[in-house]
Amino acid sequence: MTGQIKVGIAGLGTVGFSTARQLIDKEEKLARRTGVEVRLVAAADPDLPSGAEKLLTDREIFTNAEEMLDNTELDVFVELIGGINPAGDLIKSALGRGINVVTANKELLAHHGQKIFGHASRSSAQIRFEAAVGGSIPIIRTVREAMVGADFECIYGIINGTTNYMLTSMARRGLSFGEALKEAQDKGYAEADPSADVEGRDSAHKMTILAELAFGMPVPVEEVHTEGINLITPSIIEDAERLNYSIKLLGIAKKIGEKVDVRVHPTLIPDSSALAAVNCEYNAVYIQSDPTGSSMLYGKGAGGPSTAGAVVSDIVSLATVEPNSQPSIYYSDSSEGLVSTSELSTRYYLRLNATDKPGVLAKVTKILGEHRISIETVLQRGRSAGELVPVVLTTHRAREGSIQDAVDKISQLDVIGRKPKLLRIEEDFESE
Amino acid sequence: MTGQIKVGIAGLGTVGFSTARQLIDKEEKLARRTGVEVRLVAAADPDLPSGAEKLLTDREIFTNAEEMLDNTELDVFVELIGGINPAGDLIKSALGRGINVVTANKELLAHHGQKIFGHASRSSAQIRFEAAVGGSIPIIRTVREAMVGADFECIYGIINGTTNYMLTSMARRGLSFGEALKEAQDKGYAEADPSADVEGRDSAHKMTILAELAFGMPVPVEEVHTEGINLITPSIIEDAERLNYSIKLLGIAKKIGEKVDVRVHPTLIPDSSALAAVNCEYNAVYIQSDPTGSSMLYGKGAGGPSTAGAVVSDIVSLATVEPNSQPSIYYSDSSEGLVSTSELSTRYYLRLNATDKPGVLAKVTKILGEHRISIETVLQRGRSAGELVPVVLTTHRAREGSIQDAVDKISQLDVIGRKPKLLRIEEDFESE
Repeated sequence: MTGQIKVGIAGLGTVGFSTARQLIDKEEKLARRTGVEVRLVAAADPDLPSGAEKLLTDREIFTNAEEMLDNTELDVFVELIGGINPAGDLIKSALGRGINVVTANKELLAHHGQKIFGHASRSSAQIRFEAAVGGSIPIIRTVREAMVGADFECIYGIINGTTNYMLTSMARRGLSFGEALKEAQDKGYAEADPSADVEGRDSAHKMTILAELAFGMPVPVEEVHTEGINLITPSIIEDAERLNYSIKLLGIAKKIGEKVDVRVHPTLIPDSSALAAVNCEYNAVYIQSDPTGSSMLYGKGAGGPSTAGAVVSDIVSLATVEPNSQPSIYYSDSSEGLVSTSELSTRYYLRLNATDKPGVLAKVTKILGEHRISIETVLQRGRSAGELVPVVLTTHRAREGSIQDAVDKISQLDVIGRKPKLLRIEEDFESE
Repeated sequence: MTGQIKVGIAGLGTVGFSTARQLIDKEEKLARRTGVEVRLVAAADPDLPSGAEKLLTDREIFTNAEEMLDNTELDVFVELIGGINPAGDLIKSALGRGINVVTANKELLAHHGQKIFGHASRSSAQIRFEAAVGGSIPIIRTVREAMVGADFECIYGIINGTTNYMLTSMARRGLSFGEALKEAQDKGYAEADPSADVEGRDSAHKMTILAELAFGMPVPVEEVHTEGINLITPSIIEDAERLNYSIKLLGIAKKIGEKVDVRVHPTLIPDSSALAAVNCEYNAVYIQSDPTGSSMLYGKGAGGPSTAGAVVSDIVSLATVEPNSQPSIYYSDSSEGLVSTSELSTRYYLRLNATDKPGVLAKVTKILGEHRISIETVLQRGRSAGELVPVVLTTHRAREGSIQDAVDKISQLDVIGRKPKLLRIEEDFESE
């Protein structure tokens, strides 16, 4: 495909428009750098954003992406519509015609990766998706290419800029969840409907893709235990600080024996870990592997121009790659499925509201003891005889099933108010 | 080249032997993951390390690498001999035969990159060199591929594990340069002849390569201002700590107008910057670019197995790439050569030994003022009337030519003892 490559973009939202602009503005520069003429020839969107017609002078514009596929000769089809359909059908259609695909569609790949990658491997075309995870962080090519011979032990990712921005505001300025969300929306970091971000689904889509690539097995996204940051309060963040932890919405993918543990939830991580220093809208992915040891990639996780930069790099890379040299996504070294949540074993943070009277802590610790859960620290915050006061506990490693049972029992005690809050602690970071 | 690729390794030192072992041990895994059979068929070393014959059973072994090229049919020639010759001649010979080359030879590429890349572009073969910079950190493919459309503003690198290990020991445990070096040698982080590391030449080789790739222009390594860490003392590190800086041997490559500023020297960087947290044998490269913003890659910078991992990834990537799709190394967007050291403008740390009597500081500040250098902070450390005591100054931004002149004049004052120590401060880090 060396020489000239013809590109068509479907979807002119923030990333699509920015990709179009970069391809046009940088056409000469890319040719000088790579020896390949990357030519944007067409774009499709039912609802052209302002400025699109001016930018796309001399390019064919379609309202329908299937029409673009029917009527232009493309080497690369860039899908930036998002969502499951029509994006999925369009990608299938492009691959079926032998046209390479570049997409940033994490939702589609997380839900239907197996089908999409199957279409690609049966066609003579390839699919690239660097922009689907981590925006400007080149995590996909690092996992697939730079670490092609590695044995992955674990991947930890802060891979949602919106929630990381919110947690940073809450930690630094004591904002409530609602205030932090409003601020993130005002600054353009959160969408009008923020649920996919704050409920952790966006992170779960991305971790699903990373886990599939690293462990070479299909990961059913609906089996990925996913919790958002909705229940995080400034008090919880303060507790964590007193215990020398930061709270991050962490994606986790870990090899446990022959199984793989994939989950997304707000997590207490040591202040001394490199990930704890990842704040505001930044993203980072920390990898522990053999023979590489620990490594980390850090950068802006979102934003039109930086995500578009990843799309452009995928387009260029397709220009120099042999057709039919598809690396396997599902090579299945040895993994035997996912660890179920109840099998999990980790450390926990537990926040109770307990009546401030003698003997309460004894009742709580008795239940924990009966479930073979041992306590590491207890913080009793404030005193107010007969009233509800917060009690914060951290545990040593325990089984998720046991702690859930214990918390159920504890919450039925008449001295315990409202629903206790349980968070997981992660501290397997080997780095300096 | 899809299907089977035949690999020959020249040089069975730590990295070469580890590469051979990985290619053999992971042959099946790589085939499953990539669809390509990567087959080590031959190796050459005049002095086989123990265990090599056993490991290389069924492979051809040569004492001379040119003989290996003459007598085996290779798709990839892996040069891990190091040094300028015979490595350079062998690479030229391989490229001339149309055989792809993978090398980790930073010294050769820094000194003769233009010649080597020229041979490659005139041949049908390619050269890859991920392992030449940053060991396991995929910085070469990030700069060349992931950021193919980016405009680089600056690159800061902690890219020598030996000196970073030593500086960490000095900062954490107050070791002297000599003690830190001995410890690094005992632990295998420093070689018997550590001069290339501690004098900064190894970092200069790597920064030269990074600057050439990022700015698309030849960088004559002998014009890269290079200082090592030989003169760093625990007192200097303590001063820096009091001023909230860390000292790192930093490689710097920066666009200044139409020119490029490339240098390597011990540098004071803010404790709050992500690079300040890179300790021990770890490496990191921080990049500021458009449209990516700030990003950082972090990982182990050296060690046989992790560097060999980078070599293996280069070999695999050659298996799937079209011949004749050579990206340009010297695309020269606009750069007009290097900034000379005297043109530099930055902030400085200056440590003097001055006689403790009234009026000394006035003499020093008068000279600085005459050179239009304004002082930001002054630390006078300890008092001892009539004796030499340290005086530590930091300046606002000043021209290197001016500060050098001023320091010359200051050192001629009869109240100033020994040679003053001048270090540069860097604080253009935009990150969170």
